[in-house]
Amino acid sequence: MAYLRNRWYVAGWTSELTEGGGVLARTILEEPIVFFRHGAGIAALRDQCPHRFAPLRLGTVSNGALRCAYHGLAFGADGECVRNPQGPIPKAARVRAYPAHEAYSMIWVWMGAASAADPALIPDFSCISDAPARVRTPGHSKVAAHYELLNDNIMDLSHVDFLHQSSFAQGSLSSVRPQVSTRGEAIRILWSVTDAEPSVINRQHGGGASRFDIDTEVVWHAAGNMRLAVTMRPAGGAPGPVLVIEGCHMMTPETLASTHYFHCGTRNFAVDDAALTAQRAQIARRAFDEEDKPMIEAVQRSMGADTDLLSRQPMLLAGDGGAVRVRRAIKAMVDAEHSQGR
Amino acid sequence: MAYLRNRWYVAGWTSELTEGGGVLARTILEEPIVFFRHGAGIAALRDQCPHRFAPLRLGTVSNGALRCAYHGLAFGADGECVRNPQGPIPKAARVRAYPAHEAYSMIWVWMGAASAADPALIPDFSCISDAPARVRTPGHSKVAAHYELLNDNIMDLSHVDFLHQSSFAQGSLSSVRPQVSTRGEAIRILWSVTDAEPSVINRQHGGGASRFDIDTEVVWHAAGNMRLAVTMRPAGGAPGPVLVIEGCHMMTPETLASTHYFHCGTRNFAVDDAALTAQRAQIARRAFDEEDKPMIEAVQRSMGADTDLLSRQPMLLAGDGGAVRVRRAIKAMVDAEHSQGR
Amino acid sequence: MAYLRNRWYVAGWTSELTEGGGVLARTILEEPIVFFRHGAGIAALRDQCPHRFAPLRLGTVSNGALRCAYHGLAFGADGECVRNPQGPIPKAARVRAYPAHEAYSMIWVWMGAASAADPALIPDFSCISDAPARVRTPGHSKVAAHYELLNDNIMDLSHVDFLHQSSFAQGSLSSVRPQVSTRGEAIRILWSVTDAEPSVINRQHGGGASRFDIDTEVVWHAAGNMRLAVTMRPAGGAPGPVLVIEGCHMMTPETLASTHYFHCGTRNFAVDDAALTAQRAQIARRAFDEEDKPMIEAVQRSMGADTDLLSRQPMLLAGDGGAVRVRRAIKAMVDAEHSQGR
Repeated sequence: MAYLRNRWYVAGWTSELTEGGGVLARTILEEPIVFFRHGAGIAALRDQCPHRFAPLRLGTVSNGALRCAYHGLAFGADGECVRNPQGPIPKAARVRAYPAHEAYSMIWVWMGAASAADPALIPDFSCISDAPARVRTPGHSKVAAHYELLNDNIMDLSHVDFLHQSSFAQGSLSSVRPQVSTRGEAIRILWSVTDAEPSVINRQHGGGASRFDIDTEVVWHAAGNMRLAVTMRPAGGAPGPVLVIEGCHMMTPETLASTHYFHCGTRNFAVDDAALTAQRAQIARRAFDEEDKPMIEAVQRSMGADTDLLSRQPMLLAGDGGAVRVRRAIKAMVDAEHSQGR
Repeated sequence: MAYLRNRWYVAGWTSELTEGGGVLARTILEEPIVFFRHGAGIAALRDQCPHRFAPLRLGTVSNGALRCAYHGLAFGADGECVRNPQGPIPKAARVRAYPAHEAYSMIWVWMGAASAADPALIPDFSCISDAPARVRTPGHSKVAAHYELLNDNIMDLSHVDFLHQSSFAQGSLSSVRPQVSTRGEAIRILWSVTDAEPSVINRQHGGGASRFDIDTEVVWHAAGNMRLAVTMRPAGGAPGPVLVIEGCHMMTPETLASTHYFHCGTRNFAVDDAALTAQRAQIARRAFDEEDKPMIEAVQRSMGADTDLLSRQPMLLAGDGGAVRVRRAIKAMVDAEHSQGR
Repeated sequence: MAYLRNRWYVAGWTSELTEGGGVLARTILEEPIVFFRHGAGIAALRDQCPHRFAPLRLGTVSNGALRCAYHGLAFGADGECVRNPQGPIPKAARVRAYPAHEAYSMIWVWMGAASAADPALIPDFSCISDAPARVRTPGHSKVAAHYELLNDNIMDLSHVDFLHQSSFAQGSLSSVRPQVSTRGEAIRILWSVTDAEPSVINRQHGGGASRFDIDTEVVWHAAGNMRLAVTMRPAGGAPGPVLVIEGCHMMTPETLASTHYFHCGTRNFAVDDAALTAQRAQIARRAFDEEDKPMIEAVQRSMGADTDLLSRQPMLLAGDGGAVRVRRAIKAMVDAEHSQGR
């Protein structure tokens, strides 16, 4: 299936793009892109010099332009060549520039028609940027799998009971039927468990309560951006604090078989405990990198190149409702893009 | 050429499948299979959950069923789903089960129609299981080559004079014309050398005799199972012990370009000398892994994807008689399978 | 584009082929070739035994013949089998022999019709063999790129200003327009800079002069053999020594995406300073292996499989004149070979 192009994709954390001339190179939707800062903004250029096809990421930034390391041509944020050491600037000397935007401490890039690149279309992840930096746990992994398998993994959290027994498992998501709903383009799935044990990592923060009513909600925005919120209330209306753990899981396709997985968690308790933040970041990374990633990569290898799940008529379970709705939505959006001639 | 399917293949040594819930995963004829013990038997299932295609080998065994590590579906030895944490068991919830059998301390699996899977068709390797465990030298290598190149290597032992000069070379197999014969489906090749020096590894066990009449016999059973017996008699009927060294060389295709090579040797002398067994195991492993394997992998690379030797009109020598007859037999068996519609 | 076949290619340094039975295996134009010494000459055989396709490079040389390590067939310098341990020599027992020649301390091999292999066609690299061995800096790298990208790199030295700033950059080649000319099949490009600072590595050898008039000349011979000469005269006719640094850059295709890069430098100053030679060799190797090679491999990856630069309508600059003329010459020669039926 073709990529969805007219959407914003996360290209990185803004902290990855240092001040002072650094560049960030990422392949997104199979296109090599190099990012650098210019003035107050972020430039995103096709990572290939039009002269001899050298990657511009090997170059250096000065005066807001990126100079190729091979023969010295320099390009501005709009992709136009601004310097040719060997003579006048040729008319054809330009590279593709992509709309790029900084929001919610992430770098976003628009992979479709530049005229349609409205920053207002960036989904709301203020849950990240509103939280104090000291409770955030940003991370980035590369996963050798199609991004829809990663969407599936977040949209169907019933796997938590089995794959993350020692960290995130709480109550038993796999034994309740989740509710799936649609709001505009967004798709929401909600698991509600009552009178349940909290997960290992949240257990100690209940202020004395040991059983909770827990809502676990995921809201998806195309193509692979998900907000995950866990809300824990002392069971049966007992007194005690309401714990809220929020996070984002952003899947940006690198190729049809590899995905950038950006993630970040926050919380509303122990907000001054930096050691706790470090510990939770480590637990999350271990779960994503040592439990989810190997499993999803194994699924990709097991499926082979064709990861179009629905066309393979899998045996679906109750927990697949959200993931299946997301897959159908993506297919409809891609079809719409193509029928509009993009 | 297609694989021969209606035959028993060695999948592993039974010692590889530990008691207490272990699994053994092997790809055989390009099919991923997971083995585990249930009751007194061995189960062999397609290593892919029908829900989301996770490899079942990542799961755990309990009560004779294998539970998927991703979403918790469990499957019994017959491939039927026995537990769905999310609700009733769907009708489609099953995986392919392969006939599997334990014999001669090996795990055998049948890759064709289950109805034809008769354990009586497993070739006789009692030479291994009848020998005391303390003289056996079981081993397993993965070789990046088509299994027929490995068959060739055992069926044409004239290479021993050149490739294994410091270990197995005895007399000069390359200078005698071997006898090839057929018994039912089995193919036998025999090299007889007289008044010859024994090989380096057998030299010291002749009870004082220094020259021997040596018969080296290989019997092949489809698709890649060979028994190799060396019988050494003091030359010219002189008094002294008769040494017999037996072994098996079992080639199981993983893919068209990679093979599981299982091997084991035994002997009828110094049967209580465990140190000698360890030493002979090490010499054999070195010969297989550092002499045969690199050579056969180099031949595979040199031939490229097409390893159908006979179609390439090679220059054949006297020693190729057994290997060529085996290749023709395999081709006829595969053709027969296909004409029967398998 | 097809390879140019009726030309001499560098296969290695003669020092790589030791006396006493050594072999040198190289893949050239996708053909595996094994070289060995016989008498006063060098034999070059297809590196594949006609019996079972084993690579002959694993064998051993004795009496001027190369014996296969697998089953003991031996082949002479003309490719004919001279020994079969299993019986008479079969008529078909031969391998392809390639014309090979030792010249200028390099091994040359002819990849086209043997009847056309005239050693007089080997381009003159006496600049290497005439220089005392103690000033020579021979080297060999493998580069994962099409050989024409490596030709481009030497034919367009304007990159030196940017890629080799700390070693070879001198004056500013990128700011002068080079002169390109043709002599027979050879193509010459000349950069002349006046009143310039010498490069870092030559700076200290000017005998007190600090500004020079510098001619940098590259002469190309098909398919990938280039002589590079730098001649430095004290600026404006001032008194002082004339420094001459010569070198060769020989690109031999291994495949369409990998190239053997042989190189060697000499100089006409401090000719007894072995430490200087070692230092210059190290600087050159660092520049080629850590600056050119990563850049050219990145260009290859950026271009993908199609490295036919001119068909991709790149934005050309003044410095591309020599490289473009070489590419056109190669294309014409390949076309000529094919129209002649080779």
